[in-house]
Amino acid sequence: MKEYNLTKINNLIASIKKPTLIVDVYKVHQNIDRMVIKAKNSNVRLRPHFKTHQSKDIGEIFREKGITSITVSSIDMANYFANHGWDDITVAIPVNIRQIDEISNLAKRISLGILVDSIESLQYVKDNLNNNISLKIWIEIDTGYDRSGIKSSNVTSIRDIVSLILETEKFLFGGLLTHAGHTYNTQSADKIKEIYKDSVIKINFIKDYLKKNLDIIPELSIGDTPSCSLIENFSDVDEIRPGNFVFYDLTQTKLHSCKEEDISIVVACPVIKKNIEKREIIIYGGTVHLSKESLQINGNNSFGLVCLKVDNNGRSPSLKNTYVSKTYQEHGTIKIDKAYINQIKIGDIIFILPIHSCITANLYKNYKTLSNKTFTSLCSLEE
Amino acid sequence: MKEYNLTKINNLIASIKKPTLIVDVYKVHQNIDRMVIKAKNSNVRLRPHFKTHQSKDIGEIFREKGITSITVSSIDMANYFANHGWDDITVAIPVNIRQIDEISNLAKRISLGILVDSIESLQYVKDNLNNNISLKIWIEIDTGYDRSGIKSSNVTSIRDIVSLILETEKFLFGGLLTHAGHTYNTQSADKIKEIYKDSVIKINFIKDYLKKNLDIIPELSIGDTPSCSLIENFSDVDEIRPGNFVFYDLTQTKLHSCKEEDISIVVACPVIKKNIEKREIIIYGGTVHLSKESLQINGNNSFGLVCLKVDNNGRSPSLKNTYVSKTYQEHGTIKIDKAYINQIKIGDIIFILPIHSCITANLYKNYKTLSNKTFTSLCSLEE
Repeated sequence: MKEYNLTKINNLIASIKKPTLIVDVYKVHQNIDRMVIKAKNSNVRLRPHFKTHQSKDIGEIFREKGITSITVSSIDMANYFANHGWDDITVAIPVNIRQIDEISNLAKRISLGILVDSIESLQYVKDNLNNNISLKIWIEIDTGYDRSGIKSSNVTSIRDIVSLILETEKFLFGGLLTHAGHTYNTQSADKIKEIYKDSVIKINFIKDYLKKNLDIIPELSIGDTPSCSLIENFSDVDEIRPGNFVFYDLTQTKLHSCKEEDISIVVACPVIKKNIEKREIIIYGGTVHLSKESLQINGNNSFGLVCLKVDNNGRSPSLKNTYVSKTYQEHGTIKIDKAYINQIKIGDIIFILPIHSCITANLYKNYKTLSNKTFTSLCSLEE
Repeated sequence: MKEYNLTKINNLIASIKKPTLIVDVYKVHQNIDRMVIKAKNSNVRLRPHFKTHQSKDIGEIFREKGITSITVSSIDMANYFANHGWDDITVAIPVNIRQIDEISNLAKRISLGILVDSIESLQYVKDNLNNNISLKIWIEIDTGYDRSGIKSSNVTSIRDIVSLILETEKFLFGGLLTHAGHTYNTQSADKIKEIYKDSVIKINFIKDYLKKNLDIIPELSIGDTPSCSLIENFSDVDEIRPGNFVFYDLTQTKLHSCKEEDISIVVACPVIKKNIEKREIIIYGGTVHLSKESLQINGNNSFGLVCLKVDNNGRSPSLKNTYVSKTYQEHGTIKIDKAYINQIKIGDIIFILPIHSCITANLYKNYKTLSNKTFTSLCSLEE
């Protein structure tokens, strides 16, 4: 695995004519292995979120490593992975009741879990789901992210929902699920760990409450890549659901969840213009190839960092004082340190590290591996 | 055309289960008609940019109105429209020399124009283009946008490029092409008109220079939607290339290029959560459906505005004090005025006006019309 084959890499790069998402499969293996080992050590289930890669081929790498249960963020994604042999899937977004028929159909084929955070939605599902189906219901708990979920302090609402689940024959109670996404708003690893611990305390409090009041012990599911990358011991929960870690990105390096060398995808882009005076190059590669996600890096609003080389030693580090400063629909502007500008010419391929890999990867139906194989993905954008 | 059929609209809305891009074909006709008439009145060629819609079906509406020449922003897009009967296409991005074979192949089939802004790129094309082909070369002039193109003051470089074009048998000289995209950075209609006039003066200066020095009269091509929407008389140029105007968007309303009611696309999204206390609703509809483009509107960083109804009277106006405040991969948060929150319930469909229609439309392979027909598009994201 570790050995990069220079001929294959060179053939790949020679073949690139337009913006292309390249996956370093060796790094993908490393990233997954690290998380699998951690989950094993804590004796928790790893139910990775597949919205980051949306690829059956990357799914197979997870499967090789013993993963059997996954998370997705749409019914379409659940159907895609069900069609590729996954039979234990949680759709981790508050249930979209307009897709009740799709939920019924999928629940006939696989062990399907959905998320609810209101009694209204749950009642609708109860009344409209086909009979003779078993559907797992997770309750989304908001431990501070302030997006969706029931506030963790609102234990009576949570109890009412659990009661409705328990009295409904076609429902299985999955447990309490939280996404502590406020880890993304932090500046330090310590703060991320603090949020993780706070979330764990909050959902364990509800667990105890439900045990006392309804004599039921719910499973606890938690998971965001920053927490799962920085925490070593998950023994207070039953399941973790990180997703981004398979690719990582510059947002994660800024949060100290990973190092730049852990990032396993780049977008390869042709250089179409060079302006030595302005220390700029223009690439064929814009918003529709990189996305419009940006991040403050070293004081600059950056749409990506730039690497010059991928060879049998792996990928060269990102260039200093060099970043994607603007993206247009199809082209991007790179501000480049004068030390490097003479190393680049029109027609070269350069490699952009993404700001947010989930959103960038979502822009491609096909990924290329360094061995010049093609991985396919759902591309949720389709239709 | 003008009559909206309520039954069809209701059938369409009832059928929507996930984020769906809806095109109001009547508004599309209106937007195109306005530009066609203006171009005719000024006796200039309208070569609309098709990157906004990327749809063969919307292409057909243009064709009905007499349009025969188009602009695109990638070779893939040029191939797509060539396959749908368009035979006069300009690819308005500095030439990507790694696609020289694709350029040769396409130039065999249709009248193809490409853009150059450096002698190096042009020399490469000259040396590597198949023989017995005729390729039209446009020179990109930078009149102040500061993205790509040769600075308009750099007349000697422009002259050298023209000379190389003229001495090369397989080249036809298209003319001088500029995209005065700095109109997008303005705050007023007057400033947009000023930029337009400044650009026209600059390219006419080069035209005169080339006439004197090389005895050649180049065509002049200009075009960005703000200018082309606000200017009435284009008699100092030969061709205009606006694109966005077919759909318009909130960026254009802010620039006074259009009114909100001219915007011809919306993204229909299911409501999946409602939080009366926080005056928020959560929709199934996130970054992968709306894009991450945002805009300051009434002091809020907005990812879209919200309309409640589409019926036989058209679309209701956007709600006051209501906007998409955040987008995640698959869900979006809407801050909503308390006056409206009781009109919305989980499972409803609401309609999001896009910030930047080109980027939003690019996320869909299929559009739905209000008559419940399907329009297909290239979706340049596909590999």
